[in-house]
Amino acid sequence: MLDINSQINKQIYLKSSPKDKLTKENFELKESKINHLDNNQVLVEVIYISIDAANRAWMQGRTYRSQILPGDVMGGYALGKVIDSKSNKYKVGDYVEGDLGWQNYSIVNEAELIKTSIKSSENLHMSVLGITGKTAYFGLELAELKKGETVLISAAAGAVGNVAGQIAKIQGCKVIGITGSDDKAKWLIDELGFDGVINYKNDNFVKDLRAICPEKIDVYFDNVGGPIFESVLFAMNNFGRIICCGAVSQYDQAAPQNGPRGVPGLIVTKRLSLKGFIVMDFEDKKHEAEKQLMEWIDNKQIKPAEDIIIGLENTPSALIGLLNGENKGKRMVKLIK
Amino acid sequence: MLDINSQINKQIYLKSSPKDKLTKENFELKESKINHLDNNQVLVEVIYISIDAANRAWMQGRTYRSQILPGDVMGGYALGKVIDSKSNKYKVGDYVEGDLGWQNYSIVNEAELIKTSIKSSENLHMSVLGITGKTAYFGLELAELKKGETVLISAAAGAVGNVAGQIAKIQGCKVIGITGSDDKAKWLIDELGFDGVINYKNDNFVKDLRAICPEKIDVYFDNVGGPIFESVLFAMNNFGRIICCGAVSQYDQAAPQNGPRGVPGLIVTKRLSLKGFIVMDFEDKKHEAEKQLMEWIDNKQIKPAEDIIIGLENTPSALIGLLNGENKGKRMVKLIK
Repeated sequence: MLDINSQINKQIYLKSSPKDKLTKENFELKESKINHLDNNQVLVEVIYISIDAANRAWMQGRTYRSQILPGDVMGGYALGKVIDSKSNKYKVGDYVEGDLGWQNYSIVNEAELIKTSIKSSENLHMSVLGITGKTAYFGLELAELKKGETVLISAAAGAVGNVAGQIAKIQGCKVIGITGSDDKAKWLIDELGFDGVINYKNDNFVKDLRAICPEKIDVYFDNVGGPIFESVLFAMNNFGRIICCGAVSQYDQAAPQNGPRGVPGLIVTKRLSLKGFIVMDFEDKKHEAEKQLMEWIDNKQIKPAEDIIIGLENTPSALIGLLNGENKGKRMVKLIK
Repeated sequence: MLDINSQINKQIYLKSSPKDKLTKENFELKESKINHLDNNQVLVEVIYISIDAANRAWMQGRTYRSQILPGDVMGGYALGKVIDSKSNKYKVGDYVEGDLGWQNYSIVNEAELIKTSIKSSENLHMSVLGITGKTAYFGLELAELKKGETVLISAAAGAVGNVAGQIAKIQGCKVIGITGSDDKAKWLIDELGFDGVINYKNDNFVKDLRAICPEKIDVYFDNVGGPIFESVLFAMNNFGRIICCGAVSQYDQAAPQNGPRGVPGLIVTKRLSLKGFIVMDFEDKKHEAEKQLMEWIDNKQIKPAEDIIIGLENTPSALIGLLNGENKGKRMVKLIK
């Protein structure tokens, strides 16, 4: 039998808090021995680490979780398998999800884990069936889409955005994406069926938006915040809904900039509603969402889009690249020994 | 019989668009004869003009109505009585409401009027039973108040704010007001039953807010926008609701300033919802609201607070004063010949 405590654990620590843009120098890789388990703890071998823009926000301060500070193992949502257990709830071989961190092995209290059954492939469980796919699903549920409405989605080529766009198409909406490269724009239209895409790095975002949505916007699924959020506010229809899912444009910098003009003035005159949400609040409805998403995948109505990077040592650059808009679809890091 | 067309109409025009703060010099009073009516028009004698912060916003640009430009009779919601009619819908003696403008007599197309029955006094119909009282009523309906929640109200001594506070008290909430003078603060607590009031002009608004609401805020009824809106965002509880009713801090100036930091970041992490609304959207439910408000007045659960100024010529200074926070309760101008 494997002597677990003789294994070496590789761990990526936050070495210093980024002052502005995140760099590789903010991280360091260390090796350590694996501690013995206390009661109610389990040892998990990490399989896939989810790379999310929110990881960067965790370094800015307290969000829905505590701030990650220099000297902490870098936090990260991940999928893993129990390889040792002092918990009555988990046995060796169970698949689990949670904040396992950027490391090969994670010791976690049972209360911090969610048991998972893998109904399809492990990677699909990290993308469309994972937290990002479910984020798209529950966010659009809050939007109460009606057939024929115009839905605008920022960070449209990202893990959440691409699924949100595909779901809105299934529901009979006109779907416009916002992205940062012509290559991603083409991919969204040709491969995923978006009706139109705006490259926000082009000259005139506001003009492009007006040209592509002359009927204005009924639902804005916002992943970015910042200046794009402000511009879109002015292009919303009366009684429009804005789903606030993230603010990636604000994460990779020192401190949040000024907020968007038009708040709250335009919210009043246009009778807008804005709703913030976090997927973890919908835990009790996740099986329903997974079932529906699986059905859409089986019917070829959703094409999974994944961007898999191999090796723990590449996790920092995977996140830095994601913050710079490198990825198409769900980025994740697969750990191999 | 009175020869209407021999009467002189006094009218207040917008002479110039204010560049920064509104002054009396932006207006001028002119006299004119009253035109003959066309078909479907009525001639209304104006009784009470409602003075609202929104009047100033109408000079900044298009809102839910067209912009008021130099050369226009100044717009204003008002109560009046039909004194001549070429409409099948209105007869002489009918009470009507609508944008009658700042003038003694108004010629209006029948489609732009609402017929009104005065169930109590005319002035009560302009305050608690009028658009401002109903604004408070429908705004709090959107907030879905629960007993025991902490409700914060800005411009609390204003026409909408004071009624919103009294309704939230009836519904069993802890009610905190924000206002701009110690005199108004005392009035809100001693006369209207607020649980606490913060004078935002004092040294440390954020500290005062934390001291008076250590449990943080569940519902924020916002009438002001601007820096107060920003500060309150940081003091909201998770799953809090913000009712966006107005942005008076942003009206009396050239152009809107920067928006509040924390939008949309805090909306996401705190799972907030923001809802904008305009009372006119609730036209079909207004009788229900009036009935409930009248019942609360009869039961002494709502004390009407009115600030009545006499004479059309005082309308500009009435609005300028309101924008400077002069009024307690609903300000209106009563026209006498």
